[in-house]
Amino acid sequence: MTTVTVWNEYRHEQESEVVADVYPDGIHAVITDALESRGFETQTATLDEPEHGLTNDVLDDTDVLTWWGHAAHDEVEDEIVERVHQRVLDGMGLIVLHSGHYSKIFKTLMGTTCSLKWREAAETERLWVVEPSHPIADGIDEYIEVPEAEMYGERFDIPAPETLVFNSWFEGGEVFRSGCCYTRGNGRVFYFRPGHETYPVYHQDDIQQVLANAVEWAAPGDESTPEFGNADPIEAIDMTDERSVH
Amino acid sequence: MTTVTVWNEYRHEQESEVVADVYPDGIHAVITDALESRGFETQTATLDEPEHGLTNDVLDDTDVLTWWGHAAHDEVEDEIVERVHQRVLDGMGLIVLHSGHYSKIFKTLMGTTCSLKWREAAETERLWVVEPSHPIADGIDEYIEVPEAEMYGERFDIPAPETLVFNSWFEGGEVFRSGCCYTRGNGRVFYFRPGHETYPVYHQDDIQQVLANAVEWAAPGDESTPEFGNADPIEAIDMTDERSVH
Amino acid sequence: MTTVTVWNEYRHEQESEVVADVYPDGIHAVITDALESRGFETQTATLDEPEHGLTNDVLDDTDVLTWWGHAAHDEVEDEIVERVHQRVLDGMGLIVLHSGHYSKIFKTLMGTTCSLKWREAAETERLWVVEPSHPIADGIDEYIEVPEAEMYGERFDIPAPETLVFNSWFEGGEVFRSGCCYTRGNGRVFYFRPGHETYPVYHQDDIQQVLANAVEWAAPGDESTPEFGNADPIEAIDMTDERSVH
Amino acid sequence: MTTVTVWNEYRHEQESEVVADVYPDGIHAVITDALESRGFETQTATLDEPEHGLTNDVLDDTDVLTWWGHAAHDEVEDEIVERVHQRVLDGMGLIVLHSGHYSKIFKTLMGTTCSLKWREAAETERLWVVEPSHPIADGIDEYIEVPEAEMYGERFDIPAPETLVFNSWFEGGEVFRSGCCYTRGNGRVFYFRPGHETYPVYHQDDIQQVLANAVEWAAPGDESTPEFGNADPIEAIDMTDERSVH
Repeated sequence: MTTVTVWNEYRHEQESEVVADVYPDGIHAVITDALESRGFETQTATLDEPEHGLTNDVLDDTDVLTWWGHAAHDEVEDEIVERVHQRVLDGMGLIVLHSGHYSKIFKTLMGTTCSLKWREAAETERLWVVEPSHPIADGIDEYIEVPEAEMYGERFDIPAPETLVFNSWFEGGEVFRSGCCYTRGNGRVFYFRPGHETYPVYHQDDIQQVLANAVEWAAPGDESTPEFGNADPIEAIDMTDERSVH
Repeated sequence: MTTVTVWNEYRHEQESEVVADVYPDGIHAVITDALESRGFETQTATLDEPEHGLTNDVLDDTDVLTWWGHAAHDEVEDEIVERVHQRVLDGMGLIVLHSGHYSKIFKTLMGTTCSLKWREAAETERLWVVEPSHPIADGIDEYIEVPEAEMYGERFDIPAPETLVFNSWFEGGEVFRSGCCYTRGNGRVFYFRPGHETYPVYHQDDIQQVLANAVEWAAPGDESTPEFGNADPIEAIDMTDERSVH
Repeated sequence: MTTVTVWNEYRHEQESEVVADVYPDGIHAVITDALESRGFETQTATLDEPEHGLTNDVLDDTDVLTWWGHAAHDEVEDEIVERVHQRVLDGMGLIVLHSGHYSKIFKTLMGTTCSLKWREAAETERLWVVEPSHPIADGIDEYIEVPEAEMYGERFDIPAPETLVFNSWFEGGEVFRSGCCYTRGNGRVFYFRPGHETYPVYHQDDIQQVLANAVEWAAPGDESTPEFGNADPIEAIDMTDERSVH
Repeated sequence: MTTVTVWNEYRHEQESEVVADVYPDGIHAVITDALESRGFETQTATLDEPEHGLTNDVLDDTDVLTWWGHAAHDEVEDEIVERVHQRVLDGMGLIVLHSGHYSKIFKTLMGTTCSLKWREAAETERLWVVEPSHPIADGIDEYIEVPEAEMYGERFDIPAPETLVFNSWFEGGEVFRSGCCYTRGNGRVFYFRPGHETYPVYHQDDIQQVLANAVEWAAPGDESTPEFGNADPIEAIDMTDERSVH
């Protein structure tokens, strides 16, 4: 059984009435419900808990971590970022959501600025499926329509995704690579664009379905851990060279 | 005219007679000669210079930076790493050589450990060209043979290269993805495996040809710089939504 | 439950005592046993059956097709090739084995010659896992060793695989991209190099495990079928242009 | 000096006044002028010439071929398609334009149906640059706007491009991967979406600049030709195995 830890910055919901109206118990509560109703075990973790809720014990029990952050990326401790980074490289799945594009963990994994264009105008977004056979698109129609979305526009400064699953159209005239798959170390990473604190995006059934598909896709398998470092030859070769300066 | 800055840790050559025999004026001197004879302007920079020789003035005058480091990766200041990182994202080409796989700048750009297997036994390496039409393979035969090589073996913990140009065979039984192309931001990055302080690898003509090809490939073009941040709509849309919590 | 159709040319086994010693009931029998013991339903089809055993009824009941051919690629009817091609585009998985690199169906899907170097010397092959987290490598150690292999060497004239899972080392000095993933239409395609009529490769447990993993990976999901052709606008736009020359 | 052969179906322009108004001397004439003024040598070839103008002599003198076809794809002889296919695999560049997505040569190189959605409503298209550092985007702003375009919409049934350079937005609500790079054999292939017989798209300066950039990118280099077939070992290995059934 796959266990998902749903991480949320969880500030907007407590500070803004507008946001609390949409996500009264936090964005993490809606995501958690969506995943549990689709058969996953979940736990939550938030910024203001000790170690941001991401203790080694919690991570030991995490197959896939979802990440929603926005205004307080800088408050995430570097030590915790490095801890999560190491877990991803060891095989933990990571789903980065919406404004999480600017999180320390995503930028660390990508190696780029992860910058983009944005606009808050409650405009229409349409996420077209460009790889219909990808498991993350299972059960999704030709497109997902988000009636009120924050616009994110290209250029999105990321490494080209290994697989591009969704490609977004925005009413105001922009496009965006909105569903991006990566492998980093033994871990699978999925960036999924939709979701905003003032719009009810995570309440949509098709968006929830993608979250569930992505968790399924990102969950670790039975992979062996590669061995690194000094290695004896497998074939019989001359080992008498003594020029090493190590 | 493309200007290349050839960076070298430049310690082994001054501390070890074995290395000095192979590279009396430093690895950077041999690489610089190779590139100049193939039509590039060059300058050098080394670890023990102020700012590791990578001042803003030097980088202003750099189209492509080559990087050779080995035993002192940790001594490269984080501030300089971040400076080089930003330059790559802005379009500067970067050629990472051999043990530079473990440099801070390469790990930062990759987002992974960049770990691998290694062995110093002066064994045969054969770099097979797997993409013969790639410009980095221009003028190269089916393979390059390195008579005395340090072995690097898979699993090489990198993101899958956007293009794999060379694939190495080692006498002791291993393989390695030894010529790997990436794009990060506006910059092109090439990792090239061969080269070791105790073996005369950079004196080989075909290895030098690949270095020149890689510089040519990584040099910035006439690209425009993308604009990031808040963006007005291009199409006429309703801009009256006032739910923002920014 | 995933149903696999195991296709075999099935000529060598009936014509050569050397081959019959290794595969008395045909290569397909060994593959079928391997897949059934790992929980798949199987059926077989061979070249000399009517429609090469690949009737529409058989394909209606096929989630994944495995393909082994060698000396009689030209005898496979173009009509059947086109039928299989269409099924792959519609979502059927396809596992192409060893000398199947030269089959009509693989060349049609790749668009290239699929040529390579080869040599029959019963030499050692070592398939290194380069993407340990890929589901096709589940349960596999750092490498698979094939004690007696036909050599296939680069340049392998294929489009660069979407994911390279295995990378082979050969005793005679060559390397080969030996586990290659592709998407074509809605279908997933995996090329797996090992396997030869005179060597007992498909009797190896780890090779069988990869076959089972690949079937699992290639099996179709719940994807929707995209709609093609003339499309009404989703947004309200001016539709009065009358310049069409259709 | 790079020589480009500009191929055109050249029927609409002779049969339709609407088209002749936009392209009085044929689409190929406008493309030829655009490339010559940017420093390339050009020649033209059209469907109704003997061998469709693509004789071996013409192809011997072609570094890059551009292809525009629409209503008469089926009239292109299979023999000529196979001839062009072989030339691409041997290193000739190929730029496939607009409705050429359904040409025999493009479908052969892709291995898929290359189907898509379409609509003729003279609507706005905006081609966003998603890889600003790619040479095909040299000198191009953040996007190219085509005021009157035929819509092409996803799902575009192609193998995922090796590099996606442009991503299109359409007024009617769709998106499209509109600048797609591939390698096939030794040849580079670029699919570029814009261009329609009834709209003056190829008269736009920025569109012409992309055509020139693409020609530059697709032109063959100094690559060696790989050798295929039976190969002697490079290392000394036992060659006494006699079990071959060849």
